[in-house]
Amino acid sequence: MRGELGLLYKIRLRASQTPAPELRLGIGDDCAILRPGPGEEFAVTTDLSIDGRHFRLDWHPAESVGHRALARGLSDLAAMGARPVAAFLSLALPRDLVQKPRVRSGRNAKISSSAQSPWIDRFLDGFLALADANHVPLAGGDLAESTLAVADVVLTGAVAQGEALLRSGASAGDLIYVTGTLGAAAVGLQHLNKLAAALKRTRPRAKPSTRPSIPSRSVALLSPHLYPTPRVAQGLWLARNAVASAAIDLSDGLSTDLAHLCAESGVAAELDAAALPFAPGATAAQALNGGEDYELLFIAPPAARVPSSIESVAVTQIGRIVASKRSSPPITLITPKGAVSLTPQGWQHFS
Amino acid sequence: MRGELGLLYKIRLRASQTPAPELRLGIGDDCAILRPGPGEEFAVTTDLSIDGRHFRLDWHPAESVGHRALARGLSDLAAMGARPVAAFLSLALPRDLVQKPRVRSGRNAKISSSAQSPWIDRFLDGFLALADANHVPLAGGDLAESTLAVADVVLTGAVAQGEALLRSGASAGDLIYVTGTLGAAAVGLQHLNKLAAALKRTRPRAKPSTRPSIPSRSVALLSPHLYPTPRVAQGLWLARNAVASAAIDLSDGLSTDLAHLCAESGVAAELDAAALPFAPGATAAQALNGGEDYELLFIAPPAARVPSSIESVAVTQIGRIVASKRSSPPITLITPKGAVSLTPQGWQHFS
Repeated sequence: MRGELGLLYKIRLRASQTPAPELRLGIGDDCAILRPGPGEEFAVTTDLSIDGRHFRLDWHPAESVGHRALARGLSDLAAMGARPVAAFLSLALPRDLVQKPRVRSGRNAKISSSAQSPWIDRFLDGFLALADANHVPLAGGDLAESTLAVADVVLTGAVAQGEALLRSGASAGDLIYVTGTLGAAAVGLQHLNKLAAALKRTRPRAKPSTRPSIPSRSVALLSPHLYPTPRVAQGLWLARNAVASAAIDLSDGLSTDLAHLCAESGVAAELDAAALPFAPGATAAQALNGGEDYELLFIAPPAARVPSSIESVAVTQIGRIVASKRSSPPITLITPKGAVSLTPQGWQHFS
Repeated sequence: MRGELGLLYKIRLRASQTPAPELRLGIGDDCAILRPGPGEEFAVTTDLSIDGRHFRLDWHPAESVGHRALARGLSDLAAMGARPVAAFLSLALPRDLVQKPRVRSGRNAKISSSAQSPWIDRFLDGFLALADANHVPLAGGDLAESTLAVADVVLTGAVAQGEALLRSGASAGDLIYVTGTLGAAAVGLQHLNKLAAALKRTRPRAKPSTRPSIPSRSVALLSPHLYPTPRVAQGLWLARNAVASAAIDLSDGLSTDLAHLCAESGVAAELDAAALPFAPGATAAQALNGGEDYELLFIAPPAARVPSSIESVAVTQIGRIVASKRSSPPITLITPKGAVSLTPQGWQHFS
């Protein structure tokens, strides 16, 4: 079976390996059917990933593109304290990404095993490995041929009714916390940028889909960018223990995401520069404005018992929520040299 | 406010006009939150709409692109017998589609009112008009700048637990029904094709986004293609009255969609050529293989009381389900000259 139906068949076979009790009906009908458990409601999020915007076919391994496309939505569920229940994948792809790369003939021709698989297979490897690790089945989606590679990932999660962590719950006097470190993804992206530029100088004519993947010595540095870990377990812990008054995930960068949370809560924030958990090698700009860390930023009342780590990930108090004043900026950064206004500088489309 | 946040603000303002009890939290947080009513479960469907594949920026009015993008998912909900609850819209758009078209200066410059609005506004006009007509709020989505216009629409609907109309429920001896007529969308597309070719000859340099819309005299012929009506009320009626054993919507064409249903049910089908409700002007090929009619194809046991119309739309019996045999084709068309095998010839990507 070839074409769309063949691809759909292949995806359906691979998707059926991860069942979930809430998923009553998966791929194969007009709709999937989801049933929340007693006393639960569903959180739903959608995230676009576009070649040239969110990833680059000539930079990112296909496995990373699949991983990151799913990680964005899992991180949104984590920020609500929701348990992942089902994923939907809409893929618009150029035809050469669903076909096998051409193998050079001749007895000296050698090609790595990963390059023998179509790009779509390796994308699914990355997507489904992260899905399996989070016990979330692929429940549906759509496929289309396109001149541009676009993935739209929808995730649904379950959360006890009324217990979701909202952006709007922060109050003056609450404290600001962050999981993990800040800026690691930006450091990784910077390194990838350098590698890609070097690769382009040495192999200017290599086809994007058949280019070798990144050297393994760089993997540790690149990993936070290529294979970020959404903080699903940490979000679940926060919701179940009713610790946080508000939460958001760090997808656009601390300065931008904290501004979103402040706007929804009608408050302002003060950050302590000395307390920020910089990732190794990260500059202040990367820690404050670098996107895609997928850490959780959460707010808790002073009386809440916030541990120093949640599910093996460090938690750091980085500031406090204050009343919003018309004359003051929404976010102030307290440094040894005094207080400065922090302007949201994360990514914004169409600007 | 400009850029992505400005566009998001505009969409959020317009989206908040249609509340729904199941939508506990809409645009503005990491996820939307949906809570089904007692004894209900959710149906979820996603549909891509891509410039050059599912629509053409230089052919389709922006309002039609928005309408059709939503109609596809509403039709999937209808085929499950689900009541629409919430829509999610992921939009990847070239920058010029979110900006105001440039107005020529000079006292003789004239431009129609619709051309003064950005393409995105007119897309939302079409999308939200159909959403309002079906009482479904826009609950979330994603925005990104792109070199290609892509919309991915997610729809969730509510259905009583266990009452969804599946593709897999058909049995030998059941009868096959269709709502409305067959081929009207294909006739409309053919007419649009002719108009666009004529327009191109007369105005070869007009920018796609500022081209005049289709002449009004053609509207009746074009309407089934540009503004199809998903059969939401008819699907709800079938599920609530427990009349149908299986259902699917006609998005890819009768020959293809009936083959899907037969495959999921493990059965074969016979169609009576003389019974097919051809749309005015439709050829046999358009009626059998033309996609995007968005009528419902449903199956019912012989004892079921199927009315001649449901919610003011005609219902026609067009054939019967028979046992699947290895030696026989899945679909046979019975004509006055004898029986012929009907090969699925609907649209398939990557083929």
